[in-house]
Amino acid sequence: MSEKTLAGDFFDAAIGLLRQVRDAEAKNVEAAGTMLAEVIADGGCVWAFGAGHSSLPAQDTVYRAGGLAVMNLLNVPGVTGVDVRPATLGSALERVEGLAAASLDSSPVRSGDLLIVISLSGRNALPVELALNARALGLKVIGLTSVAYAEGTRSRHTTGTFLKDHCDLVIDSRIPVGDAELTAEGIEAPFAPASTVVTSALMQAVVATAAGELARRGIEPPMLRSGNVDGGHDWNARVMEEYADRIFYS
Amino acid sequence: MSEKTLAGDFFDAAIGLLRQVRDAEAKNVEAAGTMLAEVIADGGCVWAFGAGHSSLPAQDTVYRAGGLAVMNLLNVPGVTGVDVRPATLGSALERVEGLAAASLDSSPVRSGDLLIVISLSGRNALPVELALNARALGLKVIGLTSVAYAEGTRSRHTTGTFLKDHCDLVIDSRIPVGDAELTAEGIEAPFAPASTVVTSALMQAVVATAAGELARRGIEPPMLRSGNVDGGHDWNARVMEEYADRIFYS
Repeated sequence: MSEKTLAGDFFDAAIGLLRQVRDAEAKNVEAAGTMLAEVIADGGCVWAFGAGHSSLPAQDTVYRAGGLAVMNLLNVPGVTGVDVRPATLGSALERVEGLAAASLDSSPVRSGDLLIVISLSGRNALPVELALNARALGLKVIGLTSVAYAEGTRSRHTTGTFLKDHCDLVIDSRIPVGDAELTAEGIEAPFAPASTVVTSALMQAVVATAAGELARRGIEPPMLRSGNVDGGHDWNARVMEEYADRIFYS
Repeated sequence: MSEKTLAGDFFDAAIGLLRQVRDAEAKNVEAAGTMLAEVIADGGCVWAFGAGHSSLPAQDTVYRAGGLAVMNLLNVPGVTGVDVRPATLGSALERVEGLAAASLDSSPVRSGDLLIVISLSGRNALPVELALNARALGLKVIGLTSVAYAEGTRSRHTTGTFLKDHCDLVIDSRIPVGDAELTAEGIEAPFAPASTVVTSALMQAVVATAAGELARRGIEPPMLRSGNVDGGHDWNARVMEEYADRIFYS
């Protein structure tokens, strides 16, 4: 395309960000996928969590054809996606201390499981305390966050720490502070966020790596298949039965 | 990176898909952004909807810093994201005829508004009937779907039609049927879906285009700003008040 457009600029920016994490985070993605595979091989299951928009890449990997059946969504009321009303309540809940512990303690997570906490800024009480508490419960924790926020913003948690400070492994989404890829005349502030594009790709890359690592170890990865393809339903029924004690959405 | 990995292959596939829609869908994205700008300039508001995983790119643009304040999420119970339990209920609801009409008729949508319906396959009753019914109510409808599914699968709606057959404008996500970018030895079926990465980017590109088009017309685009930046809260409060009659999440 020769004509320069905002849409074209956005796609180019998103592609640039994907290239960046593909190369700069390759080792961390590989390590994360290996951690998932180890936990699954040892009988554990995997949990994903994000609040508000950071929930979207978590949900992208749960109950997903072409994904792992043992990927579960950790439930914290009012913050899964942006459909809580009023919307401001979702943001307010992210700052409530103690909500993480209450949610984790009431959840079916077990020692030996793995939790992926997704938070763009990593600065709010909820992701910080989820990581802290999950590790205290014997879970491994992977943080998927933009480390730039830890340098460019202040923690909102009483400890002054960020999500990244409480993880066994951190994947840096490398999203610039503000999460806005474009500027234009007549529009006062930068706009057009790419964090969901980048973070979803990172999550899918981690899951794919885990599947490959399980296969490498001679373990059939518990993948879900599309119900649209022949034999998909039967396959899924078998996987769901075999892994019934590690699936919490059925 | 010289070493070939599943993660690297996934990022390359996602980048390839983004390049493809950047170029092949440039005109449709431009047209969609212009439609949004026209509706907003004329006093209407914009709704986004998707069921299950297709809800994620819709939610990505709602109550979003760097996005349009007048972007609302259309509520259909049990299908927003993948946190309904059991998860199979969400898929089942997508096939229920009449659910679209009941949800639309009970919603605050108005003639002159615009609805973006996101559905990877476009074959289920819910997206088909949402488009049909929304147009009957005087809304403009944009479908964001993979047209390949209309060729490679069968409609599940009694009309035998797909989402794409009931839209004022279609953006083709060009996701191959199956939505799985990788294959590997020891993993029986293709895996690693990229639809959320691609569809979120398309949605952000449409919103960015709309913002630019409003500015071009001399209208200050009602953008939300990050609460993390100076003046962000005051700015948002002003926009939310000015557009209060077109915002349904506050």
